[in-house]
Amino acid sequence: MFQEVSQTNVPPHIPAFLNKKRNVTTGNQLTCRLDTQKTQRLLYVVGTSLKAKVNRSAPPTSKFFSVKGTANVQYSISPTPRDTSHLSPIPLTENSVLLISRDHASQHENDSKLSVQYYGANKEVLGRAVVHLTAVELSLDVDADRDGIVEKNNPNKGSWKWGPDGHGAILLVNCDSEKTYKKTPDSEEKNIYKVSDLKDMSVMVLRTKGPGKLPEGYKLTMHISQGDAESLRVFRNRSTEVPNSGLSQKLYNLFVKDYPLVLSSDVLSKEVPYLGGVAEMNFYVEGLRFPDKDFNGLVTINLSLLEPISDGLPETPIFTDKVVFKVAPWIMTPNTLRPVEVFVCSTSDNYQFLKGMRNLVAKSGYKLNICHEYVNRGDRWMQDEVEFGYIDSPHHRFPVVLDSPRDGDLANFPYDELLGPDFGYVTRVALDEHVSSLDSFGNLEVSPPVTVNGKKYPLGRIIIGVAFPTATKGRNMTKVVQDFLWAQKVQEPIALFSDWLLVGHVDEFMTFVPAPDRKGFRLLLASPDAGYKLFRGLQNSGHGQATLFDGLTNAEQITLDEILEDEKLQAENNYVQSCIDWNRDVLKRELGLDDEDIIDLPILFKLVEDENEYRAVAYYPDMVNMIVLGKNLGIPKPFGPKVNGRCALEAAMCSLMEGLGLKCTFIDDYSSYHQLLGEVHCGSNVRREPFEFKWWNLEM
Amino acid sequence: MFQEVSQTNVPPHIPAFLNKKRNVTTGNQLTCRLDTQKTQRLLYVVGTSLKAKVNRSAPPTSKFFSVKGTANVQYSISPTPRDTSHLSPIPLTENSVLLISRDHASQHENDSKLSVQYYGANKEVLGRAVVHLTAVELSLDVDADRDGIVEKNNPNKGSWKWGPDGHGAILLVNCDSEKTYKKTPDSEEKNIYKVSDLKDMSVMVLRTKGPGKLPEGYKLTMHISQGDAESLRVFRNRSTEVPNSGLSQKLYNLFVKDYPLVLSSDVLSKEVPYLGGVAEMNFYVEGLRFPDKDFNGLVTINLSLLEPISDGLPETPIFTDKVVFKVAPWIMTPNTLRPVEVFVCSTSDNYQFLKGMRNLVAKSGYKLNICHEYVNRGDRWMQDEVEFGYIDSPHHRFPVVLDSPRDGDLANFPYDELLGPDFGYVTRVALDEHVSSLDSFGNLEVSPPVTVNGKKYPLGRIIIGVAFPTATKGRNMTKVVQDFLWAQKVQEPIALFSDWLLVGHVDEFMTFVPAPDRKGFRLLLASPDAGYKLFRGLQNSGHGQATLFDGLTNAEQITLDEILEDEKLQAENNYVQSCIDWNRDVLKRELGLDDEDIIDLPILFKLVEDENEYRAVAYYPDMVNMIVLGKNLGIPKPFGPKVNGRCALEAAMCSLMEGLGLKCTFIDDYSSYHQLLGEVHCGSNVRREPFEFKWWNLEM
Repeated sequence: MFQEVSQTNVPPHIPAFLNKKRNVTTGNQLTCRLDTQKTQRLLYVVGTSLKAKVNRSAPPTSKFFSVKGTANVQYSISPTPRDTSHLSPIPLTENSVLLISRDHASQHENDSKLSVQYYGANKEVLGRAVVHLTAVELSLDVDADRDGIVEKNNPNKGSWKWGPDGHGAILLVNCDSEKTYKKTPDSEEKNIYKVSDLKDMSVMVLRTKGPGKLPEGYKLTMHISQGDAESLRVFRNRSTEVPNSGLSQKLYNLFVKDYPLVLSSDVLSKEVPYLGGVAEMNFYVEGLRFPDKDFNGLVTINLSLLEPISDGLPETPIFTDKVVFKVAPWIMTPNTLRPVEVFVCSTSDNYQFLKGMRNLVAKSGYKLNICHEYVNRGDRWMQDEVEFGYIDSPHHRFPVVLDSPRDGDLANFPYDELLGPDFGYVTRVALDEHVSSLDSFGNLEVSPPVTVNGKKYPLGRIIIGVAFPTATKGRNMTKVVQDFLWAQKVQEPIALFSDWLLVGHVDEFMTFVPAPDRKGFRLLLASPDAGYKLFRGLQNSGHGQATLFDGLTNAEQITLDEILEDEKLQAENNYVQSCIDWNRDVLKRELGLDDEDIIDLPILFKLVEDENEYRAVAYYPDMVNMIVLGKNLGIPKPFGPKVNGRCALEAAMCSLMEGLGLKCTFIDDYSSYHQLLGEVHCGSNVRREPFEFKWWNLEM
Repeated sequence: MFQEVSQTNVPPHIPAFLNKKRNVTTGNQLTCRLDTQKTQRLLYVVGTSLKAKVNRSAPPTSKFFSVKGTANVQYSISPTPRDTSHLSPIPLTENSVLLISRDHASQHENDSKLSVQYYGANKEVLGRAVVHLTAVELSLDVDADRDGIVEKNNPNKGSWKWGPDGHGAILLVNCDSEKTYKKTPDSEEKNIYKVSDLKDMSVMVLRTKGPGKLPEGYKLTMHISQGDAESLRVFRNRSTEVPNSGLSQKLYNLFVKDYPLVLSSDVLSKEVPYLGGVAEMNFYVEGLRFPDKDFNGLVTINLSLLEPISDGLPETPIFTDKVVFKVAPWIMTPNTLRPVEVFVCSTSDNYQFLKGMRNLVAKSGYKLNICHEYVNRGDRWMQDEVEFGYIDSPHHRFPVVLDSPRDGDLANFPYDELLGPDFGYVTRVALDEHVSSLDSFGNLEVSPPVTVNGKKYPLGRIIIGVAFPTATKGRNMTKVVQDFLWAQKVQEPIALFSDWLLVGHVDEFMTFVPAPDRKGFRLLLASPDAGYKLFRGLQNSGHGQATLFDGLTNAEQITLDEILEDEKLQAENNYVQSCIDWNRDVLKRELGLDDEDIIDLPILFKLVEDENEYRAVAYYPDMVNMIVLGKNLGIPKPFGPKVNGRCALEAAMCSLMEGLGLKCTFIDDYSSYHQLLGEVHCGSNVRREPFEFKWWNLEM
């Protein structure tokens, strides 16, 4: 009654259900049908197992069954038959299950065979289901152990875990530009433009082993979700399609245009070739966007083996391998990291300042980059338009500039002058939001590494300034930038109160300098109380007639006595001190600092009116607004009262810094910066070496 | 030279730096200034401490200092002076710090005093800083221990932690409607409409203790971030503003309109009254939106004490208390939960079906809700338009219907007929997305509780059907609904492959029924193999001429022999079995099931052409598409071949279910549902009791 399959020449089989070597988990089991009506030809993936319910397709009245297979196929029967000699038929139950597997890839199609014979009550043969197997080995591989090399079939490649004992591959946003003119970040280019662009991508290898070709109709497909397609693209290297090809570097370069796009938001699923034999095919995975409020940085790439059914029916994925990447965050660099290059603007009126900076940078041994007036168009606030950071992975890293939505006349500088090969660019555009002075990146800083109540921040913490959360009005940093900063995760931000300042930047009252002891740094805070204390001391020792702003033609000189008599100024500075103290408390708590980690600098402020509100500006050049170049500090020259021919403010500053082994250079920024409400730090920027610490080793 | 403050009558002070009782952490320290020029009058919050750097405001040439305070103020000096008898002045160092605190709230303003006296090298008095303190106790309180009662100042109120040893308050989305006509979810109403609406909100209590009023200019402000304002509102209860008021319930109801809105997206920060003495003020916090892709459900409410500065200057927050809420997720109810009411549609042609359902529901003892034709407008697919779920908190819970973007003629039913007092409503609108048949909620189910490789899912896992991820085309559930489901977190979804079905719903091939043993349930799967096995067995025992569809006037009868001869049908069913097996493997893996947890039901399918693609429909009424009411199953009457006068499919079904103590009732849905490509489950819906397990006790 049932169509019997032709008897195949089955060699004596090994009782594989006694074989303990294999450790097949449920996750790799694939239900398969037994068919007594026609021979089944199945493609099998090594590492999985096929599981058949023996009873489900059994001929009616079947009571027993037996199994035979070629030597290259393993099988086990459950429940385990009592008679393990497997020579006599096994009783068939509702729960009889056959597990089939193979250890090695096939060299030829259908090179293993297995049959299940069904028997009636009297052991008469009722039918026979025959399965022919072709085995392939498949593995989509990435650098999941983060050593820069794509290892084979890492068991953890499908998930991501932080920490030194973590795992999971890493993707860079391809935000640099291989082009040096008519530039655009490479991730916005349609194609791979230069072979050098490949190093910005993560290599992914498809390793296959099996017969020369897949059985008719089977195919390999690589696929991603629609959501992930916004964050990544996959390119393929045609030159690696020849198995074991040994192309020379020169030949390789000839293939530069031969990197077809495989997956993108336009193509979520695409067939990839099966090369046959033992083969490796290289893919290049490109990150398109940084972690943000709606994106945790994790993306998945899948490779599926599809089984054909027939026309008009979707092919069934019978095996899927997946790999996970995390997009590397943008990382800021604190003052304690080694400088690489210093950026300043040249304007028609800042010769004196430039001269000071040039000397300081030359003395310190770093590179000075001057942004000329045809680029800066008179906008001298180099600190405010950009923030330098970097992205890092086990295979590559490069600097990335974050462009502020401030967009003054320096707006085009980061894109036009910085973006380039191995220099990335990222920005956030404020669409419906008002951009205020608090969006300038003098209001975006980062602390050195700290440990807070046992929690480590080996990359420090980002610091921004905002209005008090209690304020019913007030300026703020745009939400798009704040969301971006918080989403990077690895330098958890701290929000300070900076709206009390007219300009409103945290760099107007704080900075960090390196120190040989304690936590490796000191927090410097502007302190009106320290200023008054110094001035009262001077007055007390008979210097009440010493004047500030000595030698400046564009400033009115004032004596210490006059300053100390000014009750309004005292009241204003009491207020400023309370604002700074509020921030001091937050910084102590959020950075785990003691009072001994903080140095108060003698700086006075004054309040100015702006639309019926009073906000603070520095009374004399704001020494805390300095540039930190290793052990050399470039400090706004304060023009303080002279005692025995030496500026008492400079002397106090030097004395405070000398204990830390730091050298103070005072730079005259009075008319070109201070009078425009900024100082040395506002007018400069520093690109620094990345951290040695790798962000993926953070314990989150 | 310095303005001296008048000498106050300071009683002998207690050397509080020896007092070990207080355990003030850095987090509660507030830097304060010492001022030798005028007496400072400070408001102090019990539980914090004021920290003054003694040297910062010291008169020049100060070498020593001493501290005195009233009995009700504690202070400590660090570094700890060698002479703890505190009678002689203490050497003043750069790091001398004074920590000041109080144990109890003041009854009157400025009721404690503390002074620091500075001395020169010869112990001559150089100046004196005097501080007057007024102490208040402040605490913004919520039900952080999740017992339904707002406890006082829970140390964990400012954070959220999952699990039975977790903490953190819970907020409900106020998505029901106190109105019964002209309805809209209460969260969209401008005001509190009825006092009964308060129970949908979380009570938050502001507890204060102190003098009759705050010192001049100080005020309390409640504030939230702009982001959180999209997710919550805060109302205040004016009737609790009188301290220790004992209003009767009747009087309370008179105050129903007296719940002013405090915080919303229009007002992020608002002053709240300080009532004086010992007072409690009730606030009501309302959730506005469910967790979603861009919202993890956590929100923060802050209460700050503001210190006045002067006009034109922002007040400084000197103390901030914060509480965190998590918005309760929407939770689905599996078939194993006790039914409450059953919903079906009445149409012009479903009398037979309705009669069957009426009997079944009556017999089972539940409530039947019939949606009449003037509401359903001929749309009978009650399963597809809505999914019943609930939201839960320690203080309240209620059912919430998720309205599908399907929007057939039943579109208005959930809003018009279900939304009401203690019956919430939520929907997701597909803006730019194509809505397909896979968006019907016959394609949205939930498993009973499971444990998978040790991971517990005590609320089960959501199950949806989609196209293969490898498919280059195919139908899918809209992203807005998928994002919503994934964001609820507590029933982590599983995506099955359902696009192989013409209608494309998971309920066409699977359901769950309760079981007394094993995991408490069985997964039932449609199985063509099981169907063929049954039919071959019948043929084998001489019933090949038995016919299907016996007694139906609108169906062509067909014999078993004819079915079993149809090779095309067999091939189609082999394909269907492979599709279901693919899902079987996913379900086994994702729900941690063994083969013994799964029952194969004998059901055949056939393929039909639809725009050059072939998809499956049930060949005879699809028995797995059943309604589960406790131990009573309402199953589509299959009209199978009769053996000895009894339908062999019904007999097989009963035999499979009886072992689990389940009773099968077969309902004739042939012409009114089956022929329209649905069955009993598609045409009904069940609201069930919530889980006893509380979602916040999940270990995440």
